[in-house]
Amino acid sequence: MNARIDNLYSLLEQEALDAIVITLPKLIYYFTGFMTDPHERFLAFVCPKGGEPFLFVPALDREKAVQTSSVKAIYAHDDAQNAYEVLQRHLGSGMSRIGLQEEHLNVKRYRALLEATGAKQAIGLDGKLALMRVVKSDGEVAVIRRAIRCIEDVFRDTIALVKPGVTELELVAEMEYRMKRLGADSPSFETMVLTGRKSGLPHGVPGVEPIREGDLLLFDAGVFIDGYASDLTRTFAVGDIGDKCRDIYDAVLQANLAMIAAVRPGVPLGSLDLAARGVIEQRGYGPHFITRAGHGFGLEIHEYPSIHANNADPVREGMTFTAEPGIYMPEIGGVRIEDNVFVTRNGAEVLTTFPKELMVIGV
Amino acid sequence: MNARIDNLYSLLEQEALDAIVITLPKLIYYFTGFMTDPHERFLAFVCPKGGEPFLFVPALDREKAVQTSSVKAIYAHDDAQNAYEVLQRHLGSGMSRIGLQEEHLNVKRYRALLEATGAKQAIGLDGKLALMRVVKSDGEVAVIRRAIRCIEDVFRDTIALVKPGVTELELVAEMEYRMKRLGADSPSFETMVLTGRKSGLPHGVPGVEPIREGDLLLFDAGVFIDGYASDLTRTFAVGDIGDKCRDIYDAVLQANLAMIAAVRPGVPLGSLDLAARGVIEQRGYGPHFITRAGHGFGLEIHEYPSIHANNADPVREGMTFTAEPGIYMPEIGGVRIEDNVFVTRNGAEVLTTFPKELMVIGV
Repeated sequence: MNARIDNLYSLLEQEALDAIVITLPKLIYYFTGFMTDPHERFLAFVCPKGGEPFLFVPALDREKAVQTSSVKAIYAHDDAQNAYEVLQRHLGSGMSRIGLQEEHLNVKRYRALLEATGAKQAIGLDGKLALMRVVKSDGEVAVIRRAIRCIEDVFRDTIALVKPGVTELELVAEMEYRMKRLGADSPSFETMVLTGRKSGLPHGVPGVEPIREGDLLLFDAGVFIDGYASDLTRTFAVGDIGDKCRDIYDAVLQANLAMIAAVRPGVPLGSLDLAARGVIEQRGYGPHFITRAGHGFGLEIHEYPSIHANNADPVREGMTFTAEPGIYMPEIGGVRIEDNVFVTRNGAEVLTTFPKELMVIGV
Repeated sequence: MNARIDNLYSLLEQEALDAIVITLPKLIYYFTGFMTDPHERFLAFVCPKGGEPFLFVPALDREKAVQTSSVKAIYAHDDAQNAYEVLQRHLGSGMSRIGLQEEHLNVKRYRALLEATGAKQAIGLDGKLALMRVVKSDGEVAVIRRAIRCIEDVFRDTIALVKPGVTELELVAEMEYRMKRLGADSPSFETMVLTGRKSGLPHGVPGVEPIREGDLLLFDAGVFIDGYASDLTRTFAVGDIGDKCRDIYDAVLQANLAMIAAVRPGVPLGSLDLAARGVIEQRGYGPHFITRAGHGFGLEIHEYPSIHANNADPVREGMTFTAEPGIYMPEIGGVRIEDNVFVTRNGAEVLTTFPKELMVIGV
């Protein structure tokens, strides 16, 4: 059994649980090396008290599990069976307390698991599981670096294609084509290319809008490689964007630098948000910084920690998170500059290397 | 208020609920026209008893909601707030019964919603909501047809690129590039290109394996267009695949045709699975048909109904689902032929038009 699974069994003892049921596919990958998307089927990694851990998989994933999982006990259920009845046969019932992922498991499965196991109490282990994996190993950081190199190469190749008349969706297509060609598993989220005023929407959706000279042009994209994510944003100037936009850009850049400079183990996560927010407020754009300053990433594109002003949890050595202050003005446009940061013993290593100074492209 | 929301309020009365809380983003789109991916943030469409419906959105989605939602009451919460406290201010507490999506809502949010509303009972409305939207309108079918035309064009363009030496991932890249160029929002699931023995894995993951002459080559892909999905699988022969593989192909093709011929309103959904399964069993491949025969699709790539042998629910006019029997033999390879079917008054219209006869390509 590997050290990660040992940690799960320690947690099982500490919490006096009869079983731990892990259901998030990426976390199952973390513990077993087996990765799948079960869609709406039930998939779990189960650690029973006093018993060996096992994978519980849809039948059509059994073969892949056998080939890739380090955990060798694998039980399957097919689409015509009640998965929870099958699980009960392997796990037994008459339990009292089980541990689960309350931020992942849905209510229906929760009710079915309680019924199948007989458990009266279900303890959400989410916070403890998040802490278990928030500190990245050297091996994990090496994979993250590959995911970052990939998206940076994609940005570099794609800005060469920018010119007035090209649409947002065309650039998305070019970026995602290059991701695959460079060996990415997939985009780590929906690739975002937003031009002109649309750059002022933090969650805008790329469309057929053509790029125009004078536009702000925002790229926000990342990839998964071997299960790990990158997440990069840069905002470019298509020709002359004018004084106002240049001022916005500079305010965001200074906020990004201030946030990164504030990183060191032990300080509250909220202080990083405040470091960025202070700069933007001082520059008079406070009401337009409408997001948190960053988020953890790794096996998931968004994972613990959330870097918002009220988060009093400490920064820890080995965390990886984004630093992505932004200014969003629906009538003008928006700027976001997002880096991927790794917390070292004394501060931060910025894993992303793509230039942050305002680049004028496309003309 | 539109007819779809009227139906929600009827459900609210029938179930004697104090509020309905819809949380699945695609279902919020269905009711309001506002589509977003809230990631880990809390997003809901709320219908309170005796009150107007409202959207409850993360602050960074407010602008897009204002621009696209037909429901004009929009309340937002930002990352530094407790979303459930903010919700309570708008919704009030002291409730007794609320309705929610138990197959979507996670346990943590469920507990928080109960606390915020004071509700003692939470009723899962999933089945009733699924039935509400299982019958597709003409407008919805028209969008689905566009999503199908798109993926069929992608298949046609991509098979011209197949030749020995090209890798699975290169073909995935070519397909997804074409999806975007043709105006798709995104792939409707992870594009699958599997060659040789890997075609025998129902959930295989494309890799750097090169295509070889004599291989079975399986494409399973779809797109979302304006929120609606397509989902197409074809299996090709790269040159001469031999008698055994040709026999497997023919068995799957006959099963696909038998399943589609069995479709008509009123028969049990399970009978469609059995129609396909009977053919495959008769041909001696029964143990290798390890999946259900199909699934509903529309706003989601997998939605109600699930077409497995034990499903006694009736086929209904207006349903859209996949017909996708397959034979999976890890030592040889696999064949799946998947169509998208629309249930008419008397039978089935096959919306997919891509040829199903074995095509020899790449040589």
